[in-house]
Amino acid sequence: MTHAFDRLTEYAAALLGAAGLDGDKPEVTARLLVSADAMGHDTHGLAQLPDYLDDIASGAMLAVGEPDIIADRPAACVWDGKYLPGVWLVDRAVRLAAERAQTHGVCAISIRRSHHIACLATFLTAATDQGLMAIVACSDPSEARVAPHGGTKPVFMPDPLAVGIPTDGDPVLIDISTSITTMGMTGRLKREGKRFPGLWALDAAGQPTDDPAKVADGALLPVGGVDHGHKGTGLAWMVEALSQGLGGFGRADHPTNWGCSVFVQVFDPALFAGAEAFTRQTAFTAEACRATPSRDGAQALRLPGAKAMAGLRRAKAEGLALRPGLLDALAPYAAKLGAPPPSTE
Amino acid sequence: MTHAFDRLTEYAAALLGAAGLDGDKPEVTARLLVSADAMGHDTHGLAQLPDYLDDIASGAMLAVGEPDIIADRPAACVWDGKYLPGVWLVDRAVRLAAERAQTHGVCAISIRRSHHIACLATFLTAATDQGLMAIVACSDPSEARVAPHGGTKPVFMPDPLAVGIPTDGDPVLIDISTSITTMGMTGRLKREGKRFPGLWALDAAGQPTDDPAKVADGALLPVGGVDHGHKGTGLAWMVEALSQGLGGFGRADHPTNWGCSVFVQVFDPALFAGAEAFTRQTAFTAEACRATPSRDGAQALRLPGAKAMAGLRRAKAEGLALRPGLLDALAPYAAKLGAPPPSTE
Repeated sequence: MTHAFDRLTEYAAALLGAAGLDGDKPEVTARLLVSADAMGHDTHGLAQLPDYLDDIASGAMLAVGEPDIIADRPAACVWDGKYLPGVWLVDRAVRLAAERAQTHGVCAISIRRSHHIACLATFLTAATDQGLMAIVACSDPSEARVAPHGGTKPVFMPDPLAVGIPTDGDPVLIDISTSITTMGMTGRLKREGKRFPGLWALDAAGQPTDDPAKVADGALLPVGGVDHGHKGTGLAWMVEALSQGLGGFGRADHPTNWGCSVFVQVFDPALFAGAEAFTRQTAFTAEACRATPSRDGAQALRLPGAKAMAGLRRAKAEGLALRPGLLDALAPYAAKLGAPPPSTE
Repeated sequence: MTHAFDRLTEYAAALLGAAGLDGDKPEVTARLLVSADAMGHDTHGLAQLPDYLDDIASGAMLAVGEPDIIADRPAACVWDGKYLPGVWLVDRAVRLAAERAQTHGVCAISIRRSHHIACLATFLTAATDQGLMAIVACSDPSEARVAPHGGTKPVFMPDPLAVGIPTDGDPVLIDISTSITTMGMTGRLKREGKRFPGLWALDAAGQPTDDPAKVADGALLPVGGVDHGHKGTGLAWMVEALSQGLGGFGRADHPTNWGCSVFVQVFDPALFAGAEAFTRQTAFTAEACRATPSRDGAQALRLPGAKAMAGLRRAKAEGLALRPGLLDALAPYAAKLGAPPPSTE
């Protein structure tokens, strides 16, 4: 059973609007959540909507208004998001940074007290569609789930880092956590009674484990794991300094609200060595990757983001199938808020 | 046998000056190479000097002059390094970016055709000493040694990424390659007849191996290895886009000269949410890491860069011991160039 991309977006937007989000917040948030599903990041798509609707109802997500501007220099800004919808805040930040990068070469925006921002990869195409390179990174300072390398207790969060890189064709889209896996994937495997494919976590005693059920009292391991986890820990430091440090709000403030410190940066290659000079390099490297024989004998390596871009195109053209149970989970909200369910096609 | 930090610097500078480097290039290059040894990165310290002296003699390292300015906007620059000494170029770029970041919040500089830049961590303190956050990344487009995740042939280089983060005490200094290990370490283990501690490489058939002797016909694996190497490959893409892409020179130009495309960026927290607001967060997270019980039972986790900063201080106060054979390797150059060997203390 598939649903049209636009119908799903309208349904999610209707729910968010009925719940109280003002202005373009429902439409932007809905479209990017559906995009996450279309791109295959289905732990960070419409699956987030029930929690968002709960947080709007409780006031933990601020439904109305604009972020406060803490600093506003041409290439360096800080916003206080006041727990406004994170997806909407980050989309707006990427678009502003993209606009300013085209004048200054670069623009960096740090956002404190954003609500949850869902799937980082979805924000990148607003920049790459214009030939711009974008970086989005975030961390939730209200929790700690990832141990620093060599340690046994969590200090960091999965602290994802996303990078959008224009080429001569589809952009390369990177979206990686700086821990081996995420809490979303951990929860899913735990519910399904499955194991991690490797020693991706620590148990309560600090011993490496492949059991997702042990993460709650233990910790996730940084990228590189017990073998070379100093690399993942270094990346977590980078992401938290760019988001919580430059934003001036984070762990030191002991926040309890589900939320994010966010870092957004856009580069305009045209103001560095030139747009064509940029894509000449990235297109060459993309082709070199595609031409590399794959270990599993498949014909060609897939570039990072290729599957996501294909999924997005397919969903817009043909609709998308959601994970079983997803719309059922939304039905009580639709009934309460009076939003009609999406048609199937 | 230890040598005073300043005597070693003078010795290396005398060699580089006698070989033909002009202006402050000998002193800056020498000081940062000795700093690399002091910080424990001894594959990227004075061990590089024979190769540098050979390249000066052959003309592969340009000894005299200034980089060409390709783009010069307040917060976004591109230099053509013309294969001038990379250590000197990057030090200069970090200092210019630091100066401009204090006016604009951020400054990014991409350098094409730099000669080799040695140890990235050594450049960071010029920024962190001023309370600034710095990023340095580079890639050598003349070679390919690292396979993309899932592939069997090399496309990328170890593409290191370094980040300097001010705290209330010593800065956090990250210096990581985006491959599990480096060519320098591979060469050393191979010479010593040792193995990698894990499956860090691929052999010529594309099979994972712990044998450094097989890298020459195979490839290094990205961070995350066979388990989650898409993360390392994503990071390599980021580093190569920032360096070769923004610099507009790289693999697509098929360079044969040993060299680097470099990306330097400095942020001034004072122009974001404030210098104190920044270090309040980073100091909190540093303390949280130090307070984390370690897996090996040691009393406290060491922060990234703590050992390097301690080594640098110790070397400046008490001198440093070099790896056996290092000065012997320089002796023929000293004899030829007429530089007196350093005194021991």
